[in-house]
Amino acid sequence: MSDTTSHDSIDFDRYDRIRPIRWTGDALELLDQRKLPFTVEYVTCTDSDAVAAAIHALTVRGAPAIGIAAAWGVVLAARTVDADDGTQAATRLAPAMQRLNDARPTAVNLAWALARMRRVLAASGADWREVITREADAIASEDLAANRRMGALGAALIAPGSGVLTHCNTGSLATAGFGTALGVIRAGVAQGRIDKVYAGETRPWLQGARLTAWELQQDGIAPTLVADAAAAHLMSTGAVQWVVVGADRICANGDTANKIGTYQLAIAARHHGVKFMVAAPSSTVDMDTASGDLIHIEERDPGELFAVGGVRTAAAEIDAWNPVFDVTPHALIDAIVTERGVIERPDGAAMRAAFGG
Amino acid sequence: MSDTTSHDSIDFDRYDRIRPIRWTGDALELLDQRKLPFTVEYVTCTDSDAVAAAIHALTVRGAPAIGIAAAWGVVLAARTVDADDGTQAATRLAPAMQRLNDARPTAVNLAWALARMRRVLAASGADWREVITREADAIASEDLAANRRMGALGAALIAPGSGVLTHCNTGSLATAGFGTALGVIRAGVAQGRIDKVYAGETRPWLQGARLTAWELQQDGIAPTLVADAAAAHLMSTGAVQWVVVGADRICANGDTANKIGTYQLAIAARHHGVKFMVAAPSSTVDMDTASGDLIHIEERDPGELFAVGGVRTAAAEIDAWNPVFDVTPHALIDAIVTERGVIERPDGAAMRAAFGG
Repeated sequence: MSDTTSHDSIDFDRYDRIRPIRWTGDALELLDQRKLPFTVEYVTCTDSDAVAAAIHALTVRGAPAIGIAAAWGVVLAARTVDADDGTQAATRLAPAMQRLNDARPTAVNLAWALARMRRVLAASGADWREVITREADAIASEDLAANRRMGALGAALIAPGSGVLTHCNTGSLATAGFGTALGVIRAGVAQGRIDKVYAGETRPWLQGARLTAWELQQDGIAPTLVADAAAAHLMSTGAVQWVVVGADRICANGDTANKIGTYQLAIAARHHGVKFMVAAPSSTVDMDTASGDLIHIEERDPGELFAVGGVRTAAAEIDAWNPVFDVTPHALIDAIVTERGVIERPDGAAMRAAFGG
Repeated sequence: MSDTTSHDSIDFDRYDRIRPIRWTGDALELLDQRKLPFTVEYVTCTDSDAVAAAIHALTVRGAPAIGIAAAWGVVLAARTVDADDGTQAATRLAPAMQRLNDARPTAVNLAWALARMRRVLAASGADWREVITREADAIASEDLAANRRMGALGAALIAPGSGVLTHCNTGSLATAGFGTALGVIRAGVAQGRIDKVYAGETRPWLQGARLTAWELQQDGIAPTLVADAAAAHLMSTGAVQWVVVGADRICANGDTANKIGTYQLAIAARHHGVKFMVAAPSSTVDMDTASGDLIHIEERDPGELFAVGGVRTAAAEIDAWNPVFDVTPHALIDAIVTERGVIERPDGAAMRAAFGG
């Protein structure tokens, strides 16, 4: 690999300052993403149900971040349980872990992190408390390392002088740090490959306007915000060469569930010859789900479309359809980037070669 | 033509109750669309500059509506002018008409209505005041008649049991009444052809959420609101058979400028085999502009992307790109419907056949 794909060329001190999840040793502190960018405030969770509630309420959001939060939730749940060994602990922790699992349905990272916690519990003895604490810590630190690796791998695909468009928030706020798609963008900016970053505002939660714009600013990168509906027009001007997005679940054939609007961007990108990259840790890959049509798409309260910041914006008593994710078929994806490498033109065979199964 | 395309089958008393522009005989009352759906309030304009300001500020919006408002603005301007005949009046009214013309740049209806006023002025004598008053009234009443005709013609293209998606507001509020694309939808609902109406919320101004949802409700039609970014996902479920939109300018080759996001819907519609219809009066056709790349696309204050209803939603000090319109190439349009008829698969030859030039 060339120099430009090495970690050495990225100044992480400059481009990676935000941490949304902090473990204090006896509590979990979550940067309240509902209040950003106006208030930077950590919420303290001292039990697992508070963590589950925070995941459900989107206090913490982003597929990798909710996996990490859930792992720490298990550590908090362990405080309320007596057990002689890991197997016994696993049984007694099962209800709390189920509630964590049920907090959000679409991102596979939540189930993945809990399965990992269950696996080490099953293999541990009297030291099970230490084992799960170490495991939660490992899940977080591996996520950060994966993101930095992914950033370098993804950025290497982008030609110098490029403009990129991203969607939702896939940055430090959505992960242990650095970000997935935003990690690729951070790396690309650090390496001088990316000249211009466009962020879609991402209705109804406005993660692009509220979170992505804020966190890029913190790291000295100035994004340009666009309405979600302006993406195709932006592409038609030639301003972007890549769309770079994250993922909530990547299926065995490469079909990718991500924030609502991603699919529309992929269709528009293909129409314009703009390249489309998915960046996500391997923990987002779900080789047990054959294809995108099998993914359960979360639908949230229609009321999210009726108001912004507590201010009613829509006509009264109307109906709304509020799916949170959509599925981008693998045929519209030019590259899936994980910490394990790049899969160009993903399909079932390429995914099996990379991830087994 | 079959019964189902006749006007007789549409109950206009039931489906056409809203009037955004009222001429009182000595003032122009404009339903303030910035305050809908929460406050139904008419703003009274007693001079032409107040009309120009109302057009610029989006108190009145929608391509046909701003043409009608501008025509009445000329009638108001005439109050301040003494002239022996129409030619002299035209010269003296020219500055006020220029200010009306400059209030918005993209919709051709504004220039079209003013050109029509200028034409009748040039041909009139001492009775020029009566002539322009009659002309403004004719522009408004012809628009309403055109919309009803267009509604019947457009609805005839839609198979019974269909779902439709629309964008922005193209209804009574955007016209003299009944609407263009919403007129087609009203007619389709009235005739039992359309079972389900989806409205995109249309950031940043939320015309879909604020205006379309409200005005359909007034007429007893219950729309389902969707985020702009959810349109392609909606199409993938099979819920919609037609996208029906209005237009701000239709070029000589059929390329159509309309609200930002329209182009993205057209690309997604073609990808899914969903049909795409543009409904607009012939006053929106601009045979002097050869193709869409020649249309001046209005860009508005980036701040429109930073707040909703006066509540700041975006990170501070960020940049934004806020084009108000985009251009849908004719190749992505299945039908252009005007009051003169339906043009299927529009191109330069079909447009010339319908509109000359």
